[in-house]
Amino acid sequence: MSKRIVIIGGVAGGASAAARMRRLSESAEIHLIERGQHVSFANCGLPYHIGGEIADRSKLLLHTPDSLKARFGLNVHIRTEATAIEREARRVKLRKADGRQTFLDYDELVLAPGAAPIRPALPGIEGGGVYSLRDISDMDSIIKGLSSLESAQRSKSVIVVGGGYIGVELAEQLVQRAFTVTLVEGAAQILSPFDPEMAGILEHRLRQSMQLVIGSRLEAILRDEKGAVRGVKLENGSELKADIVLLGLGVRPEIALARQSGLKIGELGGILVNDYLQTSDQHIWAVGDAIEVTNIITKKPALIPLAGPANRQGRLVADNIFLSQKKRYRGTLGTAVIRVHELIAACTGANERTLRQAGLQYEKLYLFPNNHAGYFPGASSLSMKVLFCPHSRKLLGAQVIGQEGADKRIDVFATAILAGLSVDDLSELELCYAPPVGSAKDPVNMAGMMMKNVCDGLVRSVAPNKLRGVVLDVRSSAEFSKAAFPGAIHIALDELRGRLAELPRDQTISVYCQTGQRSYNATRILMQHGFDALNVTGAWRAMQLFEKST
Amino acid sequence: MSKRIVIIGGVAGGASAAARMRRLSESAEIHLIERGQHVSFANCGLPYHIGGEIADRSKLLLHTPDSLKARFGLNVHIRTEATAIEREARRVKLRKADGRQTFLDYDELVLAPGAAPIRPALPGIEGGGVYSLRDISDMDSIIKGLSSLESAQRSKSVIVVGGGYIGVELAEQLVQRAFTVTLVEGAAQILSPFDPEMAGILEHRLRQSMQLVIGSRLEAILRDEKGAVRGVKLENGSELKADIVLLGLGVRPEIALARQSGLKIGELGGILVNDYLQTSDQHIWAVGDAIEVTNIITKKPALIPLAGPANRQGRLVADNIFLSQKKRYRGTLGTAVIRVHELIAACTGANERTLRQAGLQYEKLYLFPNNHAGYFPGASSLSMKVLFCPHSRKLLGAQVIGQEGADKRIDVFATAILAGLSVDDLSELELCYAPPVGSAKDPVNMAGMMMKNVCDGLVRSVAPNKLRGVVLDVRSSAEFSKAAFPGAIHIALDELRGRLAELPRDQTISVYCQTGQRSYNATRILMQHGFDALNVTGAWRAMQLFEKST
Repeated sequence: MSKRIVIIGGVAGGASAAARMRRLSESAEIHLIERGQHVSFANCGLPYHIGGEIADRSKLLLHTPDSLKARFGLNVHIRTEATAIEREARRVKLRKADGRQTFLDYDELVLAPGAAPIRPALPGIEGGGVYSLRDISDMDSIIKGLSSLESAQRSKSVIVVGGGYIGVELAEQLVQRAFTVTLVEGAAQILSPFDPEMAGILEHRLRQSMQLVIGSRLEAILRDEKGAVRGVKLENGSELKADIVLLGLGVRPEIALARQSGLKIGELGGILVNDYLQTSDQHIWAVGDAIEVTNIITKKPALIPLAGPANRQGRLVADNIFLSQKKRYRGTLGTAVIRVHELIAACTGANERTLRQAGLQYEKLYLFPNNHAGYFPGASSLSMKVLFCPHSRKLLGAQVIGQEGADKRIDVFATAILAGLSVDDLSELELCYAPPVGSAKDPVNMAGMMMKNVCDGLVRSVAPNKLRGVVLDVRSSAEFSKAAFPGAIHIALDELRGRLAELPRDQTISVYCQTGQRSYNATRILMQHGFDALNVTGAWRAMQLFEKST
Repeated sequence: MSKRIVIIGGVAGGASAAARMRRLSESAEIHLIERGQHVSFANCGLPYHIGGEIADRSKLLLHTPDSLKARFGLNVHIRTEATAIEREARRVKLRKADGRQTFLDYDELVLAPGAAPIRPALPGIEGGGVYSLRDISDMDSIIKGLSSLESAQRSKSVIVVGGGYIGVELAEQLVQRAFTVTLVEGAAQILSPFDPEMAGILEHRLRQSMQLVIGSRLEAILRDEKGAVRGVKLENGSELKADIVLLGLGVRPEIALARQSGLKIGELGGILVNDYLQTSDQHIWAVGDAIEVTNIITKKPALIPLAGPANRQGRLVADNIFLSQKKRYRGTLGTAVIRVHELIAACTGANERTLRQAGLQYEKLYLFPNNHAGYFPGASSLSMKVLFCPHSRKLLGAQVIGQEGADKRIDVFATAILAGLSVDDLSELELCYAPPVGSAKDPVNMAGMMMKNVCDGLVRSVAPNKLRGVVLDVRSSAEFSKAAFPGAIHIALDELRGRLAELPRDQTISVYCQTGQRSYNATRILMQHGFDALNVTGAWRAMQLFEKST
């Protein structure tokens, strides 16, 4: 008795589900319905072909209907849209490219429709020269538009609107392709999974290669009398010139079919699923960017349009349909990474904003360790922020920006969060160390030790933008004389024990150094001598992040 | 009531203990006893200054007695040897460089003597031209010896005896310094933490830059009539020419003082400590390369001379002496990494030999995933081996060799082992993915899924050197025609469903492809059609590893 499965949407989640299903059942009849021309392509690679870094377009095309038929015995229907689900009859209504309508029965239906780029109804937005990027044909259109600019030998100015992952990737790639780029972000920062002062590191880097306009929303696309794009107008009244506008304003779950079929929609506008990824109809499953998942940290619903979770969800649904023991989806952490020129920026879990919104208590720490032993050539420093609960002693989130090794630390943090490791465990992890590769105390261990010290009450820290009381700089005279916090007292750490009398016993003392290590030692000295001392977490380096981002 | 602490040995474990102690207690009197001239140096960096990659010698010298006094208020005694411990009186007997003897009382004593290079009593080994590498003065001597060879403009031939971490690092660095290098390893493979077929990848790489002699032990150092080194003689009778011999034959715990003081010594010849890192005398603690630890996987005693664990042990002892709640040392995994030219080789947990010796049941899998999305330029493949228990579903060990990203995967595996994650958890980890950085299904996820499939009975695998029954190659005709397993039947995966009749139903079928993914799909097809099929884990790539290593 073989099952007939219909999967609507063929990229990450849908394709993963289909391939896994076939491995679980040779006898199942599996149909894959894809609205577009391409059923299986590397959607995360699209910006990189636009920029030319992935030179060969064919590398993005992973499978054709024929290859999926041969390899997995899938019945692939491209240029076919599912227009209705008749849930009682368990069949979907399909419309082919030629307008012909058919029905396809199913035993189980999997919705993997993805999410569509947001395209606000602003003046001038309809018409040529304004692009979104979702699939191969969007990519082809953008490349065509850019190439015509290049061949016209005009100014080659492009505006990217939206500083999310896709917007920043596109902007970075257009710089690689020698366009003059302006990146516009309506919010106060780019890349909202990062906290503002961390995103500031990336903003600073982007400003070296493009114009960056932050904090003003797009109001209109400006066009000339022939209707060609000539720029954009922002809410702050300013006008920016460009020949092409790329929109990266985020995505919205594709729920039209689900909604119209009476399936429940969640509070954030995604398809509602239970822990097994079943919709409100037990024979209809849903995966990928279209669904609402549970954020593992906050336990609240979230929309997390990422390829990794979509793949795993597809696989889970295949297992839940074909294997006897049902498995729960454990939720999504939101681990993500982006390359911005030579920088790698990665994050996992919750950021400060998410924690505040969820009403969760947390402490935060900054650190700036080298990516490998400092005495070995080529070491570069990582900018790290960790968020943790001082009561449960659990990590809640982490953000790391640097060059080599940033993603590695986030992968370890992500594993630790999923495993429920404590800050104590993090301090004791046994990670790779050889001088070219790591440190005897890896940055992850360092973060663990620092969090542990806070949890144990060995040190209290103060945020780098919230110094209190008297401010003490314990760096060397050379460092202090270059630049220092206004009004700070200067006593180099190595002289501190002999100069305690110079410090007030009736006031809080905020202690900083360059990165926080010397000031931690200084804070311990002061605390043990009865002073009310706070360690400025991340010290001067972190204080500078707030200077930059404001 | 301030404590007096005496710490014997000042490098990784001893220095970590001292610094942490000071942060926990401003009032403690802390003495650091160091036999040599240098109390705090980067011992893992020594080979890299010999090779010139770390150009500046001063970068290896982390602290002086004066700087430790100023920063941490430590009383550092260099060129001072602890010659006896009077345990009843709680004092150590010290001998200064000038021969003067003194006593130093202690409340708590910490032994961090390290481990000494093994120097077997072989003919010719005493005298000039034969070096071991442990500390700064050894390094200086080696550099002097090499430089005199260089300035003499002679053949510049160096033999490194011993293919452990230090031997391989030295050999690699001498190649960088343009010496003609022969690396001699007495055992059947270099780098014993790796299994032979994995070490074979590194042996293959080393043979491209040096002569590698494996499987014959050093019998004698050959010297000319003036006593100068002219080469070595091996047990197999062969003689190799060289002007300098460097020994990297492993290390042995320094236990003379501990033994003579009546402290218990473990079965492997290291200082015996309890879970709190106390020796058999409760006021004497021991850390670092000199102690026996518990291997976390096998639960058996082990000698694991690595900097990371030594640092953590030092810190733990400081906590256990100064904080009220005692903490247990949880044992050592043995996570390690070495760079060999452009390759990074990393491992964690147990290897096959260790598991067999411990009598633990395990399964093994090989995989060769790309370090990041294959469609993004610069992807390179990782050679991965994972060992796991099919009953507990826990990872027991992993080895990864490749370029960028090898250490990252081992760090995640090491975290997973320490956290007790299951193979199911590994398949669901949310790791960094962007095309330049990772894959939607990270190599760690892939390994997890593959192990899960074995645990779930979805596929049975056969070792790449133990093919059984009929052998089926499911690669393309082009791949098959280049090289294939002798006698293998060839049916490309995409044709398999239509050609099942060509395969025997009364014999086991071992299925392979290039890396194991297509053969897994083929095995699933065959199993579901009633064939007795086994997936050759790692497929052709892994089969080649065994070709090379035998």
